[in-house]
Amino acid sequence: MTHIRVINPNTALEMTESIGRCARAVVSSSTEVTAVSPAMGPESIESHYDEALAVPGLLAEIAAGERAGVDAYVIACFGDPGLDAARELAAGPVLGIAEAAMHAATMVGRTFSVVTTLARTTGRAWELAHRYGFAAACRGVHACEIPVLDLEKPPARAAVTELCASVAERDGSDVIVLGCAGMADFCAEVTRATGVPVIDGVAAATRFAESLVALGLRTSTRGEYARPLPKRYTGLLRDFTI
Amino acid sequence: MTHIRVINPNTALEMTESIGRCARAVVSSSTEVTAVSPAMGPESIESHYDEALAVPGLLAEIAAGERAGVDAYVIACFGDPGLDAARELAAGPVLGIAEAAMHAATMVGRTFSVVTTLARTTGRAWELAHRYGFAAACRGVHACEIPVLDLEKPPARAAVTELCASVAERDGSDVIVLGCAGMADFCAEVTRATGVPVIDGVAAATRFAESLVALGLRTSTRGEYARPLPKRYTGLLRDFTI
Amino acid sequence: MTHIRVINPNTALEMTESIGRCARAVVSSSTEVTAVSPAMGPESIESHYDEALAVPGLLAEIAAGERAGVDAYVIACFGDPGLDAARELAAGPVLGIAEAAMHAATMVGRTFSVVTTLARTTGRAWELAHRYGFAAACRGVHACEIPVLDLEKPPARAAVTELCASVAERDGSDVIVLGCAGMADFCAEVTRATGVPVIDGVAAATRFAESLVALGLRTSTRGEYARPLPKRYTGLLRDFTI
Amino acid sequence: MTHIRVINPNTALEMTESIGRCARAVVSSSTEVTAVSPAMGPESIESHYDEALAVPGLLAEIAAGERAGVDAYVIACFGDPGLDAARELAAGPVLGIAEAAMHAATMVGRTFSVVTTLARTTGRAWELAHRYGFAAACRGVHACEIPVLDLEKPPARAAVTELCASVAERDGSDVIVLGCAGMADFCAEVTRATGVPVIDGVAAATRFAESLVALGLRTSTRGEYARPLPKRYTGLLRDFTI
Amino acid sequence: MTHIRVINPNTALEMTESIGRCARAVVSSSTEVTAVSPAMGPESIESHYDEALAVPGLLAEIAAGERAGVDAYVIACFGDPGLDAARELAAGPVLGIAEAAMHAATMVGRTFSVVTTLARTTGRAWELAHRYGFAAACRGVHACEIPVLDLEKPPARAAVTELCASVAERDGSDVIVLGCAGMADFCAEVTRATGVPVIDGVAAATRFAESLVALGLRTSTRGEYARPLPKRYTGLLRDFTI
Amino acid sequence: MTHIRVINPNTALEMTESIGRCARAVVSSSTEVTAVSPAMGPESIESHYDEALAVPGLLAEIAAGERAGVDAYVIACFGDPGLDAARELAAGPVLGIAEAAMHAATMVGRTFSVVTTLARTTGRAWELAHRYGFAAACRGVHACEIPVLDLEKPPARAAVTELCASVAERDGSDVIVLGCAGMADFCAEVTRATGVPVIDGVAAATRFAESLVALGLRTSTRGEYARPLPKRYTGLLRDFTI
Repeated sequence: MTHIRVINPNTALEMTESIGRCARAVVSSSTEVTAVSPAMGPESIESHYDEALAVPGLLAEIAAGERAGVDAYVIACFGDPGLDAARELAAGPVLGIAEAAMHAATMVGRTFSVVTTLARTTGRAWELAHRYGFAAACRGVHACEIPVLDLEKPPARAAVTELCASVAERDGSDVIVLGCAGMADFCAEVTRATGVPVIDGVAAATRFAESLVALGLRTSTRGEYARPLPKRYTGLLRDFTI
Repeated sequence: MTHIRVINPNTALEMTESIGRCARAVVSSSTEVTAVSPAMGPESIESHYDEALAVPGLLAEIAAGERAGVDAYVIACFGDPGLDAARELAAGPVLGIAEAAMHAATMVGRTFSVVTTLARTTGRAWELAHRYGFAAACRGVHACEIPVLDLEKPPARAAVTELCASVAERDGSDVIVLGCAGMADFCAEVTRATGVPVIDGVAAATRFAESLVALGLRTSTRGEYARPLPKRYTGLLRDFTI
Repeated sequence: MTHIRVINPNTALEMTESIGRCARAVVSSSTEVTAVSPAMGPESIESHYDEALAVPGLLAEIAAGERAGVDAYVIACFGDPGLDAARELAAGPVLGIAEAAMHAATMVGRTFSVVTTLARTTGRAWELAHRYGFAAACRGVHACEIPVLDLEKPPARAAVTELCASVAERDGSDVIVLGCAGMADFCAEVTRATGVPVIDGVAAATRFAESLVALGLRTSTRGEYARPLPKRYTGLLRDFTI
Repeated sequence: MTHIRVINPNTALEMTESIGRCARAVVSSSTEVTAVSPAMGPESIESHYDEALAVPGLLAEIAAGERAGVDAYVIACFGDPGLDAARELAAGPVLGIAEAAMHAATMVGRTFSVVTTLARTTGRAWELAHRYGFAAACRGVHACEIPVLDLEKPPARAAVTELCASVAERDGSDVIVLGCAGMADFCAEVTRATGVPVIDGVAAATRFAESLVALGLRTSTRGEYARPLPKRYTGLLRDFTI
Repeated sequence: MTHIRVINPNTALEMTESIGRCARAVVSSSTEVTAVSPAMGPESIESHYDEALAVPGLLAEIAAGERAGVDAYVIACFGDPGLDAARELAAGPVLGIAEAAMHAATMVGRTFSVVTTLARTTGRAWELAHRYGFAAACRGVHACEIPVLDLEKPPARAAVTELCASVAERDGSDVIVLGCAGMADFCAEVTRATGVPVIDGVAAATRFAESLVALGLRTSTRGEYARPLPKRYTGLLRDFTI
Repeated sequence: MTHIRVINPNTALEMTESIGRCARAVVSSSTEVTAVSPAMGPESIESHYDEALAVPGLLAEIAAGERAGVDAYVIACFGDPGLDAARELAAGPVLGIAEAAMHAATMVGRTFSVVTTLARTTGRAWELAHRYGFAAACRGVHACEIPVLDLEKPPARAAVTELCASVAERDGSDVIVLGCAGMADFCAEVTRATGVPVIDGVAAATRFAESLVALGLRTSTRGEYARPLPKRYTGLLRDFTI
């Protein structure tokens, strides 16, 4: 049995549960998915500052997962925070949801557009598109200006759906990518409204993580992603010492 | 039950069988994999000319697959011949093995090197790396100068394995990508010899195709990949008329 | 005497004749131009599928041209179908009209815009711009949504001309490129309407092909474009065996 | 009087002192430089994991600096950890030493090579070169394989100097960039040995930070780098709540 | 005492004086700034032709500066004319104002837009953004269509300010770059109107040039920027023989 | 009758004559080629400084050509000096030899390598490859370290030929580009020695210039390349006033 841990790096537990449901819906019956939140960190991630403070807690969850024999991890925040560090720590593969969503999008279309929460996060989405090699395929990153924690309120779903439909038209993109883990369960609705494939990164990352395990693949430990060197960590963060 | 058809676009049937075995080894028990070769085309693909003449037969297999209710397709040749045309024809997703291998490689490392058959095909591999967005991640494309149909002969396996080990060292890449469907069953051996993750595109493409189906994703029909317009096709090729 | 063969890869013979006239108008009096269509293939090329099925017939024309001592070839379809395969087959140079048009455009301006037929073909035009190195120079690819075979009907000429004028203004491009061989004889009219240089790829490719012959240049046979290896081709396509 | 705070994000205090000396040597007499280390974090930074765990302590120092009226900050680690988050937090400019070194290098040459500590950090250096726009100018990133904390031992200085001289020759680069704050005081020696300009990022960043203050420039707060939104931070990290 | 020479490469002396004032305002009290114009050349630079004819006079000023012991130079025209040649001639660093402005802009924001004089110069600005590595950071280059020599007339200041405010909004850029040395003294006003950091390249280049001197950095003479080889120059230009 | 003027921008008259011969060899019998040198400028061009001082004389030749009714121009120096300015001045097309050679090279191969004179000029060649869009196709720029004026001495021809053969092997390029107008008459010899297509930019540019005239194409005057604005030019350069 494959065990995939989906880590919601913020501390909003209802969101974690919803993310878990979306992840479980796409894996084989023989795969177990556990969805967790760190014990420390911000209640939502909407800035570089929030990302930075979410990462230590996220890494603690990776460390706990390693002790529990987890096979692969998903980082369920569209900024893919801590992805490189997590890869150094985990024996199995680790995928971010922005990364996975962009991979999936380019498998079913030549171009995609991202619909995300706040405009201040669009710079990070573009940076990731560049890093992963998908900048030429990305036609636009658009913000609905709804904060992460308001996504579960009724009007958000309609507003995001409407924006996605308008973006698909304006950008002429083949695919829409949902730019926040809090939108994971909007996928079916947005698909109906836009008529194009819509990617929820949580589902995509979870299924691809399961695939990497099935393919016998792990993060390369040859160079950059080798296990961190043992050393002294001072102060409050000593709990993360490996 | 999901049905994935793996099309070996050359007419070498033993290779088709070996490809089918590699594909079946990585999917869920509830997924059926059928491996086929076109009724027409070259016995191996080692040039742009070979690719061009393999594509009509490959498209005929896609058309046959559509009539048989196939859910997704894999094009099992590292030049990804006919990929765009196949996407227009098939209702479900279509993946090339170069494409899938490069996606998988960048999920488990920052850089990869490709080991392929003849030097004359390295230009095509680089072209695909550019098109898919992975050119910056690709550190090298190397030829063993063994023709496709000789890969099944005993010395080939050792020679490819040795080249992979040497390339991993020289390029300093995190991952090795096997650049021919005829190398699909070398994967375990090369992994042992290099100590880095080794990607067989047949396995990667088959598993990712199964994943796209599980995620409910199909090729976007919004623009470029809409179904071909009905029109008159003249001459020997009339069988491909849709 | 130099002999250039212009191949219209679809089977619309009136279009082939018009293409031939445009090609003949720009070469020296000592150069012979023959314009041909394949005996098999689609009546027009408006998708990747159409391109794929046009290529075998196109390659048969190249093979026939080689037997007739043709010095250079032009592929007169803006998707440049089969270009790489044709280069392997022909002793002399081969140019696609998209390729030639983009070369010419960047010789007389810093930026250009393409006006083409159906929106579904714009992805291919962008792909070629990237492959040839002209993506940064290309400011836009615009569709008039007139099918290829309707271009010869009277309203098409006016509609294309109007779109070109509007595109030149909107994109602020230095040059307009006509994105279909069926527009070859619109060149003078569009030039008058836009006030900027307008490139017809048929004329540009034919003249550049003549130039390459005059310069004593042939496609390099050093690696990728070496002659295809002799091998067995099965089925209907046996006629293309080399 | 301008007050610049140079933050060494590891907890190695002797290194912090040495960094402070290098920074003070290049500013005007009217500028005060304070060099600090966080109270928590790793003793050296040699992995993504180390970077991730250094950032919260670094941000605490930024927060403390804001209360003390600091005018600008330098992050003295060649991975530029926490740069984006620090920019959100600080009213004045923030520069990373990799960033500043690459800016300086391209002001005095067309190409540069980086000499850094461990090979596992070269991926991060390349990633930064891409992000800042200097990838085409960067001819190589080379590791001396000396851990950060061993740089202050006598043999390190000679080994790094020798590697720089060899790299300048091999890469044919115009400029050498020292890829670790622990090499800051090697600058004069390496300059003598290589005969090319040698950039210490600590000096460059400190002087450029002073320049930005003199120019009246601060990080734009228009979008991405607006002050983080007030929200609840849970657990050990509550001290960083803003 | 550091001596920086700011060269206005056109012959409009009032502009030279204004440029000198802006440059002097940002350097340390121990730095001397001299602002000069060549004895020959165009009265304003608004085309490639103007740039080309401005360069010999500019190089004569560099040669004169070398005899006078100048420590660093600024080329105060947004096309950065003659920058490479000046670097070969001068012992100390040389900065162009476009170059310096783009460096400064990317130190305080992720994206910037340029506001310049005539539309015909926007191609050159983009070319420089590409050359320096800042093309991805540049969101737009916009022309106010006011000739250089009209910038000192009262309506120009208001028109440029208004355009900057509109551009900041439309492009969503973090930073505005003033694209002409004749706008150097608009900086404070445009900053107030836009609410984002505004970069005057004259100030930025002068302060960065002073910084490079303080850092002990000079243009690398290793290869491309080695001193020009002694040779015979014929005709009117003999005065420039070195 | 078409009149093409080939301008050798240095003052070495024997080189001008040799260039003229190479140019005349590739045009139609109805085309006249005149080869000229400016009355002022450096005797050879081997630095940015030399280029800068060659340009005013070159522009004077363009101006003279316009008065004489010249149809198109070739700038016969591999740095393509003054190309943009010349385009503003001339009614007909203007081509640089680096530009033309790179266009021709990518028409007959996927990759090329440049062999040039001094290593200090390789930076400029790379810059042009980037500007024209051919950087990905360019596999290397190599210097023979023979000064321009020594190219006509007997040992040069053998040394350049040998370097070309070695470069073709090492880089694995499809095509060799001769990187100096002084190598124009080495073309046949290098072709024999390397077995790959060899491009002399003088021949390529002359023939392409003739082609652009035959195609009815001129430099776009829509924006950047509009005729320079009338204005006052002061000093020795007054002769260039337009």
